[in-house]
Amino acid sequence: MEKTHKQQIWRFTNGQWEMKEDTIATEFPVTVKLNGKELLTIVCTPEFIEDMVIGFLASERIILDYNDIQDIRVDEALGIVHVTTSKTFPFFEQLQNKRYITSCCGMSRQGFVFANDALTAKQMTEQTVTLQPAHCFQLMKTLNEQADLFHQTGGVHIAALCDTDGFSVTRMDIGRHNALDKIYGHCIQNSISVRNKVIVFSGRISSEILLKVAKIGCEIVLSKSAPTELAIQLADELGITAVGFIRGQSFNVYTHPERIHTL
Amino acid sequence: MEKTHKQQIWRFTNGQWEMKEDTIATEFPVTVKLNGKELLTIVCTPEFIEDMVIGFLASERIILDYNDIQDIRVDEALGIVHVTTSKTFPFFEQLQNKRYITSCCGMSRQGFVFANDALTAKQMTEQTVTLQPAHCFQLMKTLNEQADLFHQTGGVHIAALCDTDGFSVTRMDIGRHNALDKIYGHCIQNSISVRNKVIVFSGRISSEILLKVAKIGCEIVLSKSAPTELAIQLADELGITAVGFIRGQSFNVYTHPERIHTL
Repeated sequence: MEKTHKQQIWRFTNGQWEMKEDTIATEFPVTVKLNGKELLTIVCTPEFIEDMVIGFLASERIILDYNDIQDIRVDEALGIVHVTTSKTFPFFEQLQNKRYITSCCGMSRQGFVFANDALTAKQMTEQTVTLQPAHCFQLMKTLNEQADLFHQTGGVHIAALCDTDGFSVTRMDIGRHNALDKIYGHCIQNSISVRNKVIVFSGRISSEILLKVAKIGCEIVLSKSAPTELAIQLADELGITAVGFIRGQSFNVYTHPERIHTL
Repeated sequence: MEKTHKQQIWRFTNGQWEMKEDTIATEFPVTVKLNGKELLTIVCTPEFIEDMVIGFLASERIILDYNDIQDIRVDEALGIVHVTTSKTFPFFEQLQNKRYITSCCGMSRQGFVFANDALTAKQMTEQTVTLQPAHCFQLMKTLNEQADLFHQTGGVHIAALCDTDGFSVTRMDIGRHNALDKIYGHCIQNSISVRNKVIVFSGRISSEILLKVAKIGCEIVLSKSAPTELAIQLADELGITAVGFIRGQSFNVYTHPERIHTL
């Protein structure tokens, strides 16, 4: 299994478009089955999977020692790791009912796999908004300017809902998805339409950020970072235009370039 | 509730140490109680909490419409949001038993709250390793050099276990915590001692990264990014030296500076 894969993208640099091959990080979902029972799914880079699962089990105190593992078998084709342990620990069992969403990503998606997300994510069949390259640069510039907390602490993510004239809602959070949830909640409560609007985001476009954008119902997401492979795949399927690496005079369009106009 | 707070840190710049006040992002845990039952805990920046919870419920399809919420009340003092809905959706109920760990943070911590983490995280009462400032710069430089996938795709995190002579294990992953789990799993399987070793990490030191470092059993964590408030608090309590913003000729020491020697 490859850690990255190659993909054709549309790159805009200093006023010129080119098609080029880009290297994208693979997102690989691995489901851990502990003693025959599904424990969890981890999305990861597909290397050292066995180490990762052992390290996870140890740090979660599901095993106390490496010897607690009787057998571990990675089925790469199916994306399943079968683990057999000599015993299970009540410490962990008792905690299973509590759920916790971390600040680093904000969402734990327990209860979510892609099949189910597909039911809640909206398919963007319409094209209610298009952007000029100049809009992409301008909106990212505005995001950076509004990022006061980010500049102070270097530790938060920023998201904005905007149209081509500028920003309507900007939210920051240490949790990536929290910033988007804060925007979504604001829109729902105030009946703000997301039609004609785009999401501008400070962080990487992971599959989850992409799904969140789809759930909010926006057609375009702009980011200064890279998307993952799975995010690109989902953007492609859901009809969302994903634009990344907006830096200096360049950016990349990964999917549905028809919404980004050439000047 | 403040989004940031001020804290004294030790800053090293161009060969000189200074004490200075730094601005740190607050990490605030919010527990959502849905119809009297604990649903989950979200760690966030403490502003627009109500919007965030509404946005979360909508994007998880726990509500289909804002009108499904009969009452929502934020108790900031206790960090609890009480939500009453007119109905619950079997769609969600049925998914509650599945858990999912995302690539953006790698860990969902369901089953984990800080009280429980405190049981599994190791307290670093010893001081088996110290670093010169030159080591901090060198180790971060080595991490950057090894980051081939990172440079190719811009979308992965890198972690390394190392001593003052260099790196022993380097792992990359799109999931922040996965990289650390891969290191931990490798050490457990091969009986590699973490004594005298430090963790170098490409990303932000969140509370979870800090806890992971403590679980692995390392005394020092080096990062080129910022720590969060909660991470600093945990590092302080657990006896871990947290060094951040290692860039150019500068870095910040946030906790337990006794392990970083002045040349």
